[in-house]
Amino acid sequence: MQVASAELLTKAQAARAASRQLAKLSTTIKDAALGRIATALEKQQGQVLAANEKDVVAARADGLSATMIDRLLLNGQRLAGMAADVRAVAGLPDPVGESFDTRTMPNGLIVGKRRVPLGVIAAVYESRPNVTVDISVLCLKSGNAVILRGGKEALHSNKALVQLVQASIESAGIPRDAVQFIESTDRDIVLQMLRFQGGIDLLIPRGGEGLIRFVRDNALIPVVTGGIGVCHTFVDSSADVDKALAIAYNAKVQRPTVCNALDTLLVHSQVAPTFLPRLAEVWGKAGVEVHADKRALALFGPEPPAAVRPATREDWGKEFLSLIAAVKVVDSLEEALAHVEQYGSGHSEAIVTQDYSHALRFLDEVDAAVVFVNASTRFTDGGQFGLGAEVAISTNKLHARGPMGLRELTSYKWTVLGDGHIRS
Amino acid sequence: MQVASAELLTKAQAARAASRQLAKLSTTIKDAALGRIATALEKQQGQVLAANEKDVVAARADGLSATMIDRLLLNGQRLAGMAADVRAVAGLPDPVGESFDTRTMPNGLIVGKRRVPLGVIAAVYESRPNVTVDISVLCLKSGNAVILRGGKEALHSNKALVQLVQASIESAGIPRDAVQFIESTDRDIVLQMLRFQGGIDLLIPRGGEGLIRFVRDNALIPVVTGGIGVCHTFVDSSADVDKALAIAYNAKVQRPTVCNALDTLLVHSQVAPTFLPRLAEVWGKAGVEVHADKRALALFGPEPPAAVRPATREDWGKEFLSLIAAVKVVDSLEEALAHVEQYGSGHSEAIVTQDYSHALRFLDEVDAAVVFVNASTRFTDGGQFGLGAEVAISTNKLHARGPMGLRELTSYKWTVLGDGHIRS
Repeated sequence: MQVASAELLTKAQAARAASRQLAKLSTTIKDAALGRIATALEKQQGQVLAANEKDVVAARADGLSATMIDRLLLNGQRLAGMAADVRAVAGLPDPVGESFDTRTMPNGLIVGKRRVPLGVIAAVYESRPNVTVDISVLCLKSGNAVILRGGKEALHSNKALVQLVQASIESAGIPRDAVQFIESTDRDIVLQMLRFQGGIDLLIPRGGEGLIRFVRDNALIPVVTGGIGVCHTFVDSSADVDKALAIAYNAKVQRPTVCNALDTLLVHSQVAPTFLPRLAEVWGKAGVEVHADKRALALFGPEPPAAVRPATREDWGKEFLSLIAAVKVVDSLEEALAHVEQYGSGHSEAIVTQDYSHALRFLDEVDAAVVFVNASTRFTDGGQFGLGAEVAISTNKLHARGPMGLRELTSYKWTVLGDGHIRS
Repeated sequence: MQVASAELLTKAQAARAASRQLAKLSTTIKDAALGRIATALEKQQGQVLAANEKDVVAARADGLSATMIDRLLLNGQRLAGMAADVRAVAGLPDPVGESFDTRTMPNGLIVGKRRVPLGVIAAVYESRPNVTVDISVLCLKSGNAVILRGGKEALHSNKALVQLVQASIESAGIPRDAVQFIESTDRDIVLQMLRFQGGIDLLIPRGGEGLIRFVRDNALIPVVTGGIGVCHTFVDSSADVDKALAIAYNAKVQRPTVCNALDTLLVHSQVAPTFLPRLAEVWGKAGVEVHADKRALALFGPEPPAAVRPATREDWGKEFLSLIAAVKVVDSLEEALAHVEQYGSGHSEAIVTQDYSHALRFLDEVDAAVVFVNASTRFTDGGQFGLGAEVAISTNKLHARGPMGLRELTSYKWTVLGDGHIRS
């Protein structure tokens, strides 16, 4: 077994001790602590902004892209937005303590389940410093201690935010040890976390494909991975073309850099001749680059627009995270289902159809975290699904699938009440 | 990544293909198939018993213990018992297809969850051949394909049982590929299974501590581990002594070789002088060997019974799986809670008390799969908790905790019904 570094060991032990106190806290105290974090984010911005300035200056010196720097950047408005998000989490129902599946057995034993925190959750994430507050607050509300390991480029910002969170919760009566931040930016520490059996109850990675794969290939502790979305939208022969256009446009254009954006459009050959030229026009105006299979290409005429080019084999199953979409003409629902099965990542898949039986079959047969009928895949989101907030989108099948809210950060224990009961 | 052997690869692919068909099967067909398995277990015992005879002869030649041979042995009565168990599973509600958490969002989207099979489940287990049928039937009923890897000593029996199951389900219209049996007894194949990302959705190990640890230390796919139970019973100062005696006796004696049997008895110093001598008497008659701490030892008088000896450090946190119990005197609920936290394995923990507040605190503060008040830990069992059957007892916190029934062999997918909905 990998040995944990002194820093990880110390912080994990402190987190474990704090987690026992957190598990017993009332909702009132947890929500009050979240309120103090929100107020601090609004009223004590100086230190955080000064720390963030250091990170931004360093990022510029290191030649990071404008996009990366924008992700890193904090300002008064962004901190106020984070405060609003914290208050939203405070307003959500507390999952801890919920009793469910309770029954009285024939022998009189009262058997039930009670929702409890997981214990110590670790989060490994990349540049955006707001994740530090998001994850801390979701863990606190669900009664969990958290060990944070953010990106190197946001180190000063993250440390300042953690200090703000720790001071706020301490002032509300919650041990500051409930939120731990790993300062070491050595990649080896992630490996140590992934192998820290008994020290960490769940690790959530938030980042790109490289991080997710590293976690999947090295974790000996429970992890929930996800966030890689190769999302298909299938426009069936019976689709309402106007709705299909709106959905395909929204799924690709509204926010192309995220995991639930459209990657591949499958279109039935019966509707392709009317649908694809109209789609090319609206997508074209938005700057979408189309990688079309042969049959789709032919429908754009002998001289397709500049933004349409032949698809290559690599386009199928690719998460573009940009204004690029692959397009393929298929001859049946079955062909679409087979394509989705082969190339999907189990994240979000949609059909646009007016055919009732096709809608049912798509819902039945597609094996993904979220399956849509006549709606944009962009809806895959904790907020949109009524969870209020999300810690991640899981493409695992175990424990939680799809958007994970507060309840997905809990476990349960069985409670059994007897009166001298023995087993015969 | 570890490469899967040709046998594993072929069988996993066949299981995956079958799992897609299984996921769509009606409860009627699944229950009919289970009925055919039960009938075959009653009516076609010849081949299974002949195969079992081979295993038993080989086991005797290899000098296996009488206990091991008894575990291995099948006869007409045991096969009839297995048939009854299969019919019991057929009578349980089918978890697949259950809709839950459905809501209509303010924008009109209908968002819900639908319970679905996990896909392909692998089970690695040791001697008892009935596990072959148990696990197959639980997986089939929950719509999952299964890859079985049984113990070397039961190879002929397992193969015969798998053939019986495959023929039975095929006659009911379920692909025989739904149940796969790995014939290779090479230990390396378990390692391959544990690393077969994408090929196996969940692996369940059923066996001793060595197997569980091997799985935990090598798994790169989802696993649910458990079955190691270091179980404490705390007799509080206010305990009803008669109930405490009955519970301690039952928890230790009724079936000492299983995971939910008592290992350590903690007894409050105020009740110890009256309780321990009486316990020593009833345990003594049952042949229980007591490893007592100093204070407990003193209560047995200057010449304690032969079956009472001083406890050593190794006795705390030890799973005895036999008629041995460690006994320790404590001075408070807090001391008992601290001991349970330090030495428990998160399986089953009990308090015997008449003090209402102590009962609540024990329920709140003990972090285990099952927490009992005034009842024997022997009740930790899927059947006793109303699940009808269990595939394992999880001491994990993720996905499932405690006894795992059919529902715990499922995942869910989100389904979203729109009518041209796009995200703004």
